[in-house]
Amino acid sequence: MARQGAMAMELNPISSAGEQTVGADIEALVGRLYPICRSITGDGVRKTLSILSEHIAIRRIEIPTGMEVFDWTIPEEWNIRDAYIADLLGRRIVDFGANSLHVVSYSVPVHQIMSMSELRPHLHILPDQPDLIPYRTSYYNRNWGFCLSRNQLEAMGDGPFEVRIDATLEPGSLTIGEIFIPGEIAEEILISTHICHPSMANDNCSGLAIAAFIAARAERAGLRHSLRVLFVPGTIGSLAWLALNDAETWRIAHGLVITGLGDRGDFTYKRSRLGNARIDRAAVHVLSGCGGDPKIIDFSPWGYDERQYCSPGLNLPVGRLTRSPHGEFPEYHSSADDLTFVSAEALEEALVAIEDIIAVIDQDRTYRSTNQKGEPRLGKYGLYRTVAGQSGKVPEMAMLWVLNLSDGRNSLLDIAQRSGQPFSEIRMAADALHGAGLLEDVSKRAG
Amino acid sequence: MARQGAMAMELNPISSAGEQTVGADIEALVGRLYPICRSITGDGVRKTLSILSEHIAIRRIEIPTGMEVFDWTIPEEWNIRDAYIADLLGRRIVDFGANSLHVVSYSVPVHQIMSMSELRPHLHILPDQPDLIPYRTSYYNRNWGFCLSRNQLEAMGDGPFEVRIDATLEPGSLTIGEIFIPGEIAEEILISTHICHPSMANDNCSGLAIAAFIAARAERAGLRHSLRVLFVPGTIGSLAWLALNDAETWRIAHGLVITGLGDRGDFTYKRSRLGNARIDRAAVHVLSGCGGDPKIIDFSPWGYDERQYCSPGLNLPVGRLTRSPHGEFPEYHSSADDLTFVSAEALEEALVAIEDIIAVIDQDRTYRSTNQKGEPRLGKYGLYRTVAGQSGKVPEMAMLWVLNLSDGRNSLLDIAQRSGQPFSEIRMAADALHGAGLLEDVSKRAG
Amino acid sequence: MARQGAMAMELNPISSAGEQTVGADIEALVGRLYPICRSITGDGVRKTLSILSEHIAIRRIEIPTGMEVFDWTIPEEWNIRDAYIADLLGRRIVDFGANSLHVVSYSVPVHQIMSMSELRPHLHILPDQPDLIPYRTSYYNRNWGFCLSRNQLEAMGDGPFEVRIDATLEPGSLTIGEIFIPGEIAEEILISTHICHPSMANDNCSGLAIAAFIAARAERAGLRHSLRVLFVPGTIGSLAWLALNDAETWRIAHGLVITGLGDRGDFTYKRSRLGNARIDRAAVHVLSGCGGDPKIIDFSPWGYDERQYCSPGLNLPVGRLTRSPHGEFPEYHSSADDLTFVSAEALEEALVAIEDIIAVIDQDRTYRSTNQKGEPRLGKYGLYRTVAGQSGKVPEMAMLWVLNLSDGRNSLLDIAQRSGQPFSEIRMAADALHGAGLLEDVSKRAG
Repeated sequence: MARQGAMAMELNPISSAGEQTVGADIEALVGRLYPICRSITGDGVRKTLSILSEHIAIRRIEIPTGMEVFDWTIPEEWNIRDAYIADLLGRRIVDFGANSLHVVSYSVPVHQIMSMSELRPHLHILPDQPDLIPYRTSYYNRNWGFCLSRNQLEAMGDGPFEVRIDATLEPGSLTIGEIFIPGEIAEEILISTHICHPSMANDNCSGLAIAAFIAARAERAGLRHSLRVLFVPGTIGSLAWLALNDAETWRIAHGLVITGLGDRGDFTYKRSRLGNARIDRAAVHVLSGCGGDPKIIDFSPWGYDERQYCSPGLNLPVGRLTRSPHGEFPEYHSSADDLTFVSAEALEEALVAIEDIIAVIDQDRTYRSTNQKGEPRLGKYGLYRTVAGQSGKVPEMAMLWVLNLSDGRNSLLDIAQRSGQPFSEIRMAADALHGAGLLEDVSKRAG
Repeated sequence: MARQGAMAMELNPISSAGEQTVGADIEALVGRLYPICRSITGDGVRKTLSILSEHIAIRRIEIPTGMEVFDWTIPEEWNIRDAYIADLLGRRIVDFGANSLHVVSYSVPVHQIMSMSELRPHLHILPDQPDLIPYRTSYYNRNWGFCLSRNQLEAMGDGPFEVRIDATLEPGSLTIGEIFIPGEIAEEILISTHICHPSMANDNCSGLAIAAFIAARAERAGLRHSLRVLFVPGTIGSLAWLALNDAETWRIAHGLVITGLGDRGDFTYKRSRLGNARIDRAAVHVLSGCGGDPKIIDFSPWGYDERQYCSPGLNLPVGRLTRSPHGEFPEYHSSADDLTFVSAEALEEALVAIEDIIAVIDQDRTYRSTNQKGEPRLGKYGLYRTVAGQSGKVPEMAMLWVLNLSDGRNSLLDIAQRSGQPFSEIRMAADALHGAGLLEDVSKRAG
Repeated sequence: MARQGAMAMELNPISSAGEQTVGADIEALVGRLYPICRSITGDGVRKTLSILSEHIAIRRIEIPTGMEVFDWTIPEEWNIRDAYIADLLGRRIVDFGANSLHVVSYSVPVHQIMSMSELRPHLHILPDQPDLIPYRTSYYNRNWGFCLSRNQLEAMGDGPFEVRIDATLEPGSLTIGEIFIPGEIAEEILISTHICHPSMANDNCSGLAIAAFIAARAERAGLRHSLRVLFVPGTIGSLAWLALNDAETWRIAHGLVITGLGDRGDFTYKRSRLGNARIDRAAVHVLSGCGGDPKIIDFSPWGYDERQYCSPGLNLPVGRLTRSPHGEFPEYHSSADDLTFVSAEALEEALVAIEDIIAVIDQDRTYRSTNQKGEPRLGKYGLYRTVAGQSGKVPEMAMLWVLNLSDGRNSLLDIAQRSGQPFSEIRMAADALHGAGLLEDVSKRAG
């Protein structure tokens, strides 16, 4: 995929050759987050936020067990210290210490000697992928279980086994991480990513790391819009945040759920339920100039937290950016989603794409040409090549499009879309024309 | 074509293996209607209605000769007892008794000895299909004629011939058959089919037989909408019915002209003049799930009685369902459209498709989710699989679509269309959600 | 490309076989205009208008140097008598007399002995097309220069050279040619073509000649709409006309910029900024029936005078018809655009297409069928074939479309578009139906 990043570079320069690239920095952060056992509650989330906080201050919101959020209730807090299946000599056959995926998330504690026939109903494998450990959860149904590879299972024999899950499921709280960077206007751009998945690099250490970098870079660069970044446990976390901020969700003028951005697949953008909101148009415009073969898919009530942001009574303009969509690659929700599955290059490209989308939203303006009848004579303003028939340096086509469509109704994004010119060129042309007094800014005041 | 029929089966079970299939029953009825010589008036129509009345009560409307209906006038009634061309030894060369197509419909009586040169202008053949008898009419131009195969004509010699048409063309009446099954609401679904064609199995014994079965089965099953079935002589019959019911046509909320449904071609749905009425959307949705390669064509003022229902001052939402469209298959309007041209399987598939379209219209509802903000927790209502990552029996995607789009504006058909899920699954999901108290019925009261 | 011309022939017959074709007449006119050195001002324009005036009276508008037109100012008038580069023996190496392209348009006078190194910055070639002379201008930047082929340049040696441009650049006026043919209504159809290009046959002797023929033929035939034809120097000419007629531009109800119509490429129609104005729909309809592979392209603010007519504060419904678009063929803006590059056949086809587009606009009407409910019985009015099943001479499908869609809202062009029937057949059907009293003319009164 070709590197664009014209916009991103204005927010914050992407590292030059010779330096450590920002992609490598993100990859390193992914590596630190990877081993932690996260779930929808518990210390794994808090430890993750602590590491992310090394890059930018993150506010923690703790929501107590039992609190009602819309149709849901904050569950008990789950914490796990150790878990294993061992033979009676104490040799661990399946060991939580080796991979946090080995325990079904939210497993109740167990410590018992049992035969394979007793144990088997609690074991989860991927029959068609004999080397891989699956990822399983049982949040709202009290149960326990282990996930292991089919190869491990087949080598286990009949037992007896010592089975232990040293976990607690007790009243506590659910933790959300929130960053808010106030801009010049109250309208917010939301970036939301889920923090509940254990040791999987792409799903979702990639989203967590990129979100932290975006926030840190945006804080340094400064945006016109306010920026809100949420690290939420999937579903229950976004519901809880929405319930707590019910009177303020109107401020979310544009939003992106981000996840699964480190693999080698092309980008996939899923439209908001609104279908053609500004965020949708900005994302489509940026991705279409990104190279590769980006897929643009319609909204469906399946996926990540966009399901909640786009529920009918909220209907927020929130789309979703991923690479290979969830459930459509063999490594999905398994131990194959490890650190080798993500790359610095893919992570950096994703950062650039998201920053470009944010820039399009943030830098969009609506102008009215001061020459409504006929074109202005660009040469008078030093904006024309000197000998006709030879092309100049100024993006003349972009200037002509801006002049022709700037009737006070079309924004720069509208003009970029209709003309097929990159937003960056349209904005450059508009800046030149505005500087020459040929455009009047008639953008609606937001916020 | 794959058998769907999920909806039809609820209206009335389609016969199971081992029994006589409903398709065979329809085919048998086609076989009984086939020999009768029908025209736009006369006893052939009445005899046809008598046979159809063995399946369901049919009201006859007799409209007297000379009555004006819009721009038209009810013609004299035509009845025919016998017709032939014979040699002077009385041997019949062309015999109406062998095939009712042999006489041009509405031929005035004739009984005369004539040479081939006198007779020839009254003979109609299909030059390129030497075995086939064409179908010809001369309703509004007093004339007489015989239709025969080119082979018959070439074997006739120079004559002289005895030419006889024992017919009467006298004041009488035009006959329409009407079935009305009142539903819970005054809004009607109209099924209209033409009853004026003589011995052709597909055009239109197929439409007549299927319409009778639909009415009989709907009466047993019960519909929310009222159902009106019309057996009308083509053009003049629908015009007469519309003129007589001019103040009540607004009740026709959805309609289908059906004909030519027994051949082996894929379905063809012709949209109403409105283009995207509920009937159009329901038909497109059902046919797209039917297998085969259904064709959806735009309205044109050519074809059957949809021309009248869709005239500009009525503009009723009436589409048309056929298989191979009229005029586009070699057997069209000829003796090749005989009983071998239709099959029980094709007839039953057509019945199922029409009943499914009716069911979509009849069972469509508009709901509002009781959880407008955020999804409900389906597990609380027993509507969720127990271990995440394993699929359950409930059509979860359909439930999520219904919940997400049920904002009080989208009906189940809208949801089926946007989601690409079959209407039957969307309705099943809606029933489950409604049963759990998660949906409120906000359908507009009709009628 | 197939010849249509059904409409054009009604305006004015296209010459029959045996006669001199109108295409040959246009080609002959192109040949007379070709040698003249035109620019945005000066006697070349006036001489061109004199020749065109042999076909139809043309009003000249002289706009004085220094007058402000919107953001622009009428420049000094440029006239050139002679120009050459010669060796010191007086042998001309580059001679304006041989081709008016040899001098950069608007060159200031020069007469000097200079070496190649001094001269070279003033020489323009096409490096990749060694035989061709480019076309260059320097209207708003005082400069001088010569255009020549690369081969000429390479043969020139180091000089010294006598360099002479015998031109004047002095206060004078800019000349516009205008034809106005009043019709029955005040709404105008505008044909605009640029008159500022020197010796290039396609760009734009073709447009000039065709425009004159269209005006002359329309004057003889008579139109309902008023017709205005403008011969304008590119950009500054249309701006000047628009500025002078600022209060009257609303009368331009439909417009076409025409140019480059004599080459062998298929037609290219560029939509107005409005995108789907009546002129756009008429052009698309006519071209789609023209044969060949016409291209329909969206508006962009690049090209000819449509840029000014479609500036945001005017936004006139003006499209553009060319064959191969400017800049997309190798002969563009060079000496290869000579008389061999255009053909009588292509010129005549273009005339026919434009006249057909004008005819669709001019002959469009909106009717209301007097039978809103049900079809009328065409046989009563002598408009039906006598024996059903055999096709008659009357375009029955066109009649049925007109009857069905004539609800007072659809014009004949709307009906032609929706039905896919040629406008000429739809109009013929409408005339027959109107003659029989079956249609009432409910066209909005224009003007």
